[in-house]
Amino acid sequence: MLTFIGLGLYDERSISIAGRDALQAADYVAAEFYTSYLVDATVSDLETAHDIDIDVRDREGVEQHPEDILRKAQSEDVAFLTAGDTMISTTHTDLRLRAIDRGIDTRVIHGVTAQTAASGLTGLQNYRFGKSVTLPFPYAHGAEGVPTSVTDSITANRERGLHTVVYLDIKADRDEYLRASDAAEMLATDFEDMLAVVVARAGSPDPTVRADRLSALAEKDFGDPLHLLVLPGELHHLEEEALAALADAPADMLNAVDSQWIK
Amino acid sequence: MLTFIGLGLYDERSISIAGRDALQAADYVAAEFYTSYLVDATVSDLETAHDIDIDVRDREGVEQHPEDILRKAQSEDVAFLTAGDTMISTTHTDLRLRAIDRGIDTRVIHGVTAQTAASGLTGLQNYRFGKSVTLPFPYAHGAEGVPTSVTDSITANRERGLHTVVYLDIKADRDEYLRASDAAEMLATDFEDMLAVVVARAGSPDPTVRADRLSALAEKDFGDPLHLLVLPGELHHLEEEALAALADAPADMLNAVDSQWIK
Repeated sequence: MLTFIGLGLYDERSISIAGRDALQAADYVAAEFYTSYLVDATVSDLETAHDIDIDVRDREGVEQHPEDILRKAQSEDVAFLTAGDTMISTTHTDLRLRAIDRGIDTRVIHGVTAQTAASGLTGLQNYRFGKSVTLPFPYAHGAEGVPTSVTDSITANRERGLHTVVYLDIKADRDEYLRASDAAEMLATDFEDMLAVVVARAGSPDPTVRADRLSALAEKDFGDPLHLLVLPGELHHLEEEALAALADAPADMLNAVDSQWIK
Repeated sequence: MLTFIGLGLYDERSISIAGRDALQAADYVAAEFYTSYLVDATVSDLETAHDIDIDVRDREGVEQHPEDILRKAQSEDVAFLTAGDTMISTTHTDLRLRAIDRGIDTRVIHGVTAQTAASGLTGLQNYRFGKSVTLPFPYAHGAEGVPTSVTDSITANRERGLHTVVYLDIKADRDEYLRASDAAEMLATDFEDMLAVVVARAGSPDPTVRADRLSALAEKDFGDPLHLLVLPGELHHLEEEALAALADAPADMLNAVDSQWIK
């Protein structure tokens, strides 16, 4: 049995109880932290909290050399851990298909995703989000500025009145993550005065949620990672109130003039 | 302090450890199960598993008469529980804003959502989903068939190659939920031979994931609730492989003829 378990967003207590139980029952536990990572728990924290040993695999150890993981899973209970939800990256789906190909039973125990948190923390309604995008580091993208695919998706969502989650590039193996202020500066080239919402440390006990013009957000410091941005489309009245109350959205960016929240 | 806690999708063990800890530390625990509910845990199961008492509120008890919740939260630790994530419904955002208006500290502890599970269980990539929709019961919609807003959103997503999650109506207070087969039959009027994926019991130990034409899915029985549908847009090669391996997608609905999975 190969059980894919999502650890959630923040620390060793972000996992579900069902996930924790499966983790503790496993004979062997592998994990990857190159697609994402837990902001406030080291591998050692996870091992201590759950009384387990974790074999951390790099990309090559998952994608090129998963043999020993699959061999163990043929006769034992193997758990494979990722931050956030599992199956978010193609690398996980690929491993699951390899296991099924060998007749290994697989199952998935979900974790909380940044998409969920982006909606919950901003008060923007989840059914009003369009396609999400990832903003890469310029060096990873191979050019300055924002890829056309990103700006096109944002524009297409906005034409339908939809919000866009902008995930920010993570190079976990280099301990680099794109900051919301840098992302806002990049996006301000195309969308200077657009309203945007920074969500920093989603899933943590002290998330920061701040709405302002992209050009203004580019000047601020939102502290420790991870960060993401939301670019709102059309705002319903309650969404405007939420952005004013939860994210200090400036009054001149909102229409709901009769709200107590909008100063 | 008012802490909104998402219980996740399935039973009393779907909550995160952080959520469970906050729940057990609360002086008073309220919950609502009219926007969604846990498929395999009663209120009594939750109370027993976490050693707490839960005050279940109906819609009126949350939206019209939240006074006692707010009054308690001014001096005590109050937890407010919902199935899935919290803040998914406007009713939760509204309660949070009322609390903030009174100077009450609020926080959010996220739970796993059906959107997350729909992506993870089908192998469809999360960044390739467009706006999601909810398909109402005809009696709730007030007319036969599928609302134009639903078909328009599906069509707009597909024009951009994007997948659509179709949530199915829940009338928890009447113990009614729209079945995937009935939803497929309704959607088949507009999209007869479209490929669709049923996800039944997402988040449970035995989810069903089945891909076929809408007209074929309309003839099947997917067992206990909750159900949802995914209408895929363009499929990448790995997504086709995943739908064949995980959901028995028929070969003639897929293009990747060189895959071992597609028979």
